[in-house]
Amino acid sequence: MTGTDTAEMALDRSDPESAIAAAAHRCSNWARWGADDVHGTLNFLDDAKRARAGALIRHGRSFSLSQSFDTNGPQHGWRRRSNPVHTMLDTGTDAEAGIQGFPHGLGGADDVVSMPLQCSTQWDGLGHIFDHGRAWNGRRAGEVVTSQGDQVTGIETVADRIVGRGVLLDVGRVYGTGTELPDGFAITTAHLEETIRTQGGASSAVGRGDIVTVRTGQLTRARRDGWNDYAGGAAPGLSFTTADWLHRTEIAAIATDTWGFEVRPNEFDNAFQPLHQVAIPHIGLFLGEMWDLDALAEHCARTGTYEFFLVAAPIPVTGAVGAPVNPIAVV
Amino acid sequence: MTGTDTAEMALDRSDPESAIAAAAHRCSNWARWGADDVHGTLNFLDDAKRARAGALIRHGRSFSLSQSFDTNGPQHGWRRRSNPVHTMLDTGTDAEAGIQGFPHGLGGADDVVSMPLQCSTQWDGLGHIFDHGRAWNGRRAGEVVTSQGDQVTGIETVADRIVGRGVLLDVGRVYGTGTELPDGFAITTAHLEETIRTQGGASSAVGRGDIVTVRTGQLTRARRDGWNDYAGGAAPGLSFTTADWLHRTEIAAIATDTWGFEVRPNEFDNAFQPLHQVAIPHIGLFLGEMWDLDALAEHCARTGTYEFFLVAAPIPVTGAVGAPVNPIAVV
Amino acid sequence: MTGTDTAEMALDRSDPESAIAAAAHRCSNWARWGADDVHGTLNFLDDAKRARAGALIRHGRSFSLSQSFDTNGPQHGWRRRSNPVHTMLDTGTDAEAGIQGFPHGLGGADDVVSMPLQCSTQWDGLGHIFDHGRAWNGRRAGEVVTSQGDQVTGIETVADRIVGRGVLLDVGRVYGTGTELPDGFAITTAHLEETIRTQGGASSAVGRGDIVTVRTGQLTRARRDGWNDYAGGAAPGLSFTTADWLHRTEIAAIATDTWGFEVRPNEFDNAFQPLHQVAIPHIGLFLGEMWDLDALAEHCARTGTYEFFLVAAPIPVTGAVGAPVNPIAVV
Amino acid sequence: MTGTDTAEMALDRSDPESAIAAAAHRCSNWARWGADDVHGTLNFLDDAKRARAGALIRHGRSFSLSQSFDTNGPQHGWRRRSNPVHTMLDTGTDAEAGIQGFPHGLGGADDVVSMPLQCSTQWDGLGHIFDHGRAWNGRRAGEVVTSQGDQVTGIETVADRIVGRGVLLDVGRVYGTGTELPDGFAITTAHLEETIRTQGGASSAVGRGDIVTVRTGQLTRARRDGWNDYAGGAAPGLSFTTADWLHRTEIAAIATDTWGFEVRPNEFDNAFQPLHQVAIPHIGLFLGEMWDLDALAEHCARTGTYEFFLVAAPIPVTGAVGAPVNPIAVV
Repeated sequence: MTGTDTAEMALDRSDPESAIAAAAHRCSNWARWGADDVHGTLNFLDDAKRARAGALIRHGRSFSLSQSFDTNGPQHGWRRRSNPVHTMLDTGTDAEAGIQGFPHGLGGADDVVSMPLQCSTQWDGLGHIFDHGRAWNGRRAGEVVTSQGDQVTGIETVADRIVGRGVLLDVGRVYGTGTELPDGFAITTAHLEETIRTQGGASSAVGRGDIVTVRTGQLTRARRDGWNDYAGGAAPGLSFTTADWLHRTEIAAIATDTWGFEVRPNEFDNAFQPLHQVAIPHIGLFLGEMWDLDALAEHCARTGTYEFFLVAAPIPVTGAVGAPVNPIAVV
Repeated sequence: MTGTDTAEMALDRSDPESAIAAAAHRCSNWARWGADDVHGTLNFLDDAKRARAGALIRHGRSFSLSQSFDTNGPQHGWRRRSNPVHTMLDTGTDAEAGIQGFPHGLGGADDVVSMPLQCSTQWDGLGHIFDHGRAWNGRRAGEVVTSQGDQVTGIETVADRIVGRGVLLDVGRVYGTGTELPDGFAITTAHLEETIRTQGGASSAVGRGDIVTVRTGQLTRARRDGWNDYAGGAAPGLSFTTADWLHRTEIAAIATDTWGFEVRPNEFDNAFQPLHQVAIPHIGLFLGEMWDLDALAEHCARTGTYEFFLVAAPIPVTGAVGAPVNPIAVV
Repeated sequence: MTGTDTAEMALDRSDPESAIAAAAHRCSNWARWGADDVHGTLNFLDDAKRARAGALIRHGRSFSLSQSFDTNGPQHGWRRRSNPVHTMLDTGTDAEAGIQGFPHGLGGADDVVSMPLQCSTQWDGLGHIFDHGRAWNGRRAGEVVTSQGDQVTGIETVADRIVGRGVLLDVGRVYGTGTELPDGFAITTAHLEETIRTQGGASSAVGRGDIVTVRTGQLTRARRDGWNDYAGGAAPGLSFTTADWLHRTEIAAIATDTWGFEVRPNEFDNAFQPLHQVAIPHIGLFLGEMWDLDALAEHCARTGTYEFFLVAAPIPVTGAVGAPVNPIAVV
Repeated sequence: MTGTDTAEMALDRSDPESAIAAAAHRCSNWARWGADDVHGTLNFLDDAKRARAGALIRHGRSFSLSQSFDTNGPQHGWRRRSNPVHTMLDTGTDAEAGIQGFPHGLGGADDVVSMPLQCSTQWDGLGHIFDHGRAWNGRRAGEVVTSQGDQVTGIETVADRIVGRGVLLDVGRVYGTGTELPDGFAITTAHLEETIRTQGGASSAVGRGDIVTVRTGQLTRARRDGWNDYAGGAAPGLSFTTADWLHRTEIAAIATDTWGFEVRPNEFDNAFQPLHQVAIPHIGLFLGEMWDLDALAEHCARTGTYEFFLVAAPIPVTGAVGAPVNPIAVV
């Protein structure tokens, strides 16, 4: 985890295609866990690591890392991604009016939701992104995700697995102004490693099987100033050049407090989420987006301890290529 | 936890109204945590208990207690409750066809879901059930749940709280045939207490702040024989007479592997979910339904240990009166 | 249809409550068609009128007066009104990939939609607006529209009725700049009557049982300049003072090319859609919104004929308080 | 329109593939209206025909041919087709409770719907069915219908066109028991022609540009006996052998009172909707399904007149491969 490849240093803004191909080649985990694998980097997270992570529970305080799910969210329709629409099937007003037809004074309220699975705090599943028609482990995209959903790597396949040691890298606190990185700030491997050093101690170390959370502070800003272009606009985030770090650290998953995980605008003259294109289909890495890390970060800063037990189990919508999650950090 | 009230013994099938009123009176927790309380029995679950529960993580094995969320579920339209409809906004087939308009070979898949919040594994929120127009803590039902959702006790208020010691009471294994209770089997306080004794040891003890899971085996049967009337038909479940036990044990929450938590048909000549009517608005108790306890139960039976660390954090849909959850038990 | 009441003239901007009450009193049709009536002003439109309207079909040219239904619509979330989300259950890409499982080369595509019923071109049903807790014909609002929908005046009750003589009043062409009225322009009875005179001839006359369409030109502007605040912002529209005209002309229904039918900002210092509050619950009038009148208006201007056969039959969603419609004018 | 091809006579139950290919070859309209055509057989319906159809309006009586749209519909989940779910955003109960926040006593109700576009009375669009990867006019299925919807022949392209002369062929009344054909009854060309003769007179004649409605009586039965397998099970319907009649009559569209238009079980040992496979992609014919023809049929039987003015304009959901419609027949 000390050196950085020369490859990571050079970023030719004019040639994303070559850069993506090279990173994909360097970082590929295809076949690492067999041709049938559907778990990707979650293979790094085993029971032994999970058991050790359990020992991080000391105070018994739990933090929800989830944003809310409602119409006041940041979505504004890009690729038909809207905010959740929550409606009632029965209400207390109706119950009070005595019109529900239940006996003996029973009243009830029920509700429904309609929402894109990537509308708020979520995991990208392995079927979310493809590179040149290839999904995780080299499968054909069209064999994996059809109109029926993800037939192979649907989010239900990892329903019980995203449980282990979480580490917070509060890059916003180390490099930001008032804990917030500016939009367009590309977090490089050097920034990540220096954040680990600055936070200090073993509690910030990142290694095999860890679930890393990276706080940029953009959500803090959005909470204060309004969403603006939080969903898809300029944002701090991981640099494309961190692909090798994501690969060699052998982390199980990584999540940020931003819409898109990687820095935006992307670092090539013309590209769209190039780090996704390497991380998901080639590394097999689970990416979390739109997590709310603020309360946890306050706690970590106060205690100087940046690790915690993390349960981030997605709702197992069968065949989903992403899924809502209420991640719980316990310290 | 030893004796059982005389009140629990007598159940006049012909007079549900009086029985409900009496149980509500005996078991009320209104004002116990102040007039503004929105957490009900989750007040019993504090950081200290959560910290002790963390020590139950030994092997690092995690179990998802969630059923799947898809159109193959048990719902058949009662009160407009349907199964989830999951549709794709973008697919791998489209990506492979090269028609998505992303640069440099990037392809993507996205999806949406439309579902009742009580369609599969879920928590009932405190705004789900009312008694004679009153919600938890004595509030007027119409002040709590309007067309805008639950304005007071929405599920988001407990997003970070349902984390602690879980206990499995495998009543199906103790009293059932092949681990399955027949439909209509009313689980009484005596059954619960005898199950604790039979399972043996401190690991099955139930007390303040615990999250109790009760396995009836009905889901095992549905998995084998088809859903049939799983959603709303006859089922094993808690007897109305357990209201006092639910109250005096000071548990934080309780969940079953059935659609409706309590025994069905209900134990009065004419009633609808009378135990809900006491448990939710009067005790302030969180009820979980449609949990899948089978794999965990196998593990518990094999190891003889029936307690575990449980994270059962609902998706915080703002104002929801219930919510999907992927409960994770870690042993 | 010539004179105008004194009452219409006076509009005290500071006292909407009194103005609404007075107009409601003057214009009430409660009990006019019996206590059980659910059709309101559609009672004015009988078979005889419908038969005469049929004679207006001369050229056989049909115009759809519907806007499109898609995510590019004007909604931006007010009261959870979003644009329609249309997703595919099966696609041609999948069919071409041969993965659908149908025999002998059959392929299929299917789709779903999720949308507010007032998202695009629609009729307001009689259960859409209440005045001091009263719905059309004096019924209690809570007896009419519950969480189960409109139990009395659901849009299905008029599924076969909104068929008759349509008249276009192109106020935008008479009073506007380049056929467009500015936002905030209040169309008064004088404007309506002068438009009828200017358009000339019997073809513009408005009377009992007619379905009147009023073009302001705002949609023309939105089509050119973008939606901006089309959904809920400032707009040309009917003045509150037209309530008496709407009542005494005995029209069956009226529709505009704007989001909200009446002028916005509303004409009182503090009010919200006060003309709705008179027109729907008291007059029992059907209001159409977001109609696209541009192509029809071009035709009418060219031919000098402003009447046509109109079929504007809403999709009969049971219990709906409004409904999408694709109105067809035939000339 | 009198003779029937020999080809129509022979139906080898064991070789659907050849039969479909042969019928597709005989009946193809590809390129008939140019390579860019998106209107298919609606090209047969022009203004002149529409104008003549207007003259059929004599009594001014209108019939809605739409079934209702609600959860009590026939769908049971095949290919994720559910019944419509209609929920309220605001209710009269809330309005009456005075909690909506509008000034001066205004109250409102709003609603949303989530539904498959083929859940109830609908038109199949030209992008609904493919034959060996080919859509209407020979286009590649994957070029026409992607996850974004129908990019070429979306239902919005015919929003203003399905207006003209309707003809009812009440085959149920001619050949049925109590006006109902039994399930599995294959309506042949001979049946259609004999029905025309039996009904008598010019009003039943079928020719270029007509919109034909065929009543089997199955809906009458479902209304009386319950839905049972109305959606997808055995049903009376058009025989595969009518493909040539559908082609040579040059009708604009055809609709039935059944779920699937053609007879079910289909007439080959192994096939799925083979007549669709010829009619939609090769003939370019618009198929209507689940229409309610009963009231209209009563009227026609009583008057002996089987033609009417028909407006059957689908809701123009952009890119839809089918769409809800409230067809209005005016006599």
